[in-house]
Amino acid sequence: MTVDGAIKARRSIRKYQDKPVSESDVNRLLDLARHSPSSMNGQPWHFIVIREPGIKKEIAAIKNRYCPAEKRSYEADFLETAPVVIVLGVDTERSYGRELENSVLAAAHLMLAACAAGLGSVYMSAYAADEPKLAEEIGRTLNIPKNVRPITIIPLGYPDEVPPPKSLRPLKEMIHLERF
Amino acid sequence: MTVDGAIKARRSIRKYQDKPVSESDVNRLLDLARHSPSSMNGQPWHFIVIREPGIKKEIAAIKNRYCPAEKRSYEADFLETAPVVIVLGVDTERSYGRELENSVLAAAHLMLAACAAGLGSVYMSAYAADEPKLAEEIGRTLNIPKNVRPITIIPLGYPDEVPPPKSLRPLKEMIHLERF
Repeated sequence: MTVDGAIKARRSIRKYQDKPVSESDVNRLLDLARHSPSSMNGQPWHFIVIREPGIKKEIAAIKNRYCPAEKRSYEADFLETAPVVIVLGVDTERSYGRELENSVLAAAHLMLAACAAGLGSVYMSAYAADEPKLAEEIGRTLNIPKNVRPITIIPLGYPDEVPPPKSLRPLKEMIHLERF
Repeated sequence: MTVDGAIKARRSIRKYQDKPVSESDVNRLLDLARHSPSSMNGQPWHFIVIREPGIKKEIAAIKNRYCPAEKRSYEADFLETAPVVIVLGVDTERSYGRELENSVLAAAHLMLAACAAGLGSVYMSAYAADEPKLAEEIGRTLNIPKNVRPITIIPLGYPDEVPPPKSLRPLKEMIHLERF
């Protein structure tokens, strides 16, 4: 799949077929994510690959517990039905103060590569600036050491939904020439 | 270019040919960036497309002024030589507290799409958590309104350098099964 095709085809998928995602497919996607840019080329990524239902359930419960009121339309229970859930953390000692950027760049590459491989995913946050317990509890559940900050959660699975077409804001409202 | 091919081919490019990048090419890339995921589908992006040398020079000067000591090996002067510099800001009223994620996801798509179109780019930050003046001065220079936060700067141009191969950290150091 071409880059342009994947960018336009990728949608947030929260419903997955009951069909396994192979270890080699997951490793191939993580290998691609490792090619992302990172601040000072620190390559600070850690990928926790979760398949055990009990652990997925715990992560979903933590996400639900700290979900802000305005986002309750997206419950995290569906994480339990994803064949694989990847928690992406970054080593603060290799991040040069850019933990978020480093994680999100790799997540974007991972999701696009997943789309190109026929897999669905959705970006979810493993931390919240105003709710430190979210990252703390995810870290404790997954034995993440203190120098690694969990930033992103990405479930992966073959899509079992076709989201309705997304209405895009007009590009001309977003583009400004020279200055705003 | 395929997604996998672009992810592996993309490198941070800071030296550009003296060859213009057309408005239609830039708009096509921004159209693709607009297809990125965003929190609650807020599509909060604003793209400021800069071609005027004087403005590029001001942005480079601001970046240099607030560059942390450990990153001084990357001076921002090269921004003046990029045919186009895009400053990506996000509307805080459409970002649901996820300004950074929203900007970085679009930036990742934009850079991959640029690579697939033969263009070089590099991710640069327009803000720093510990140095609010960086974003303030960029905002003032570009007349960015208060409800829009500048997050990312992406120069674009045809590459005039071939970076040496990047040595990647072993994937097995990054992958953890079930828990860390």
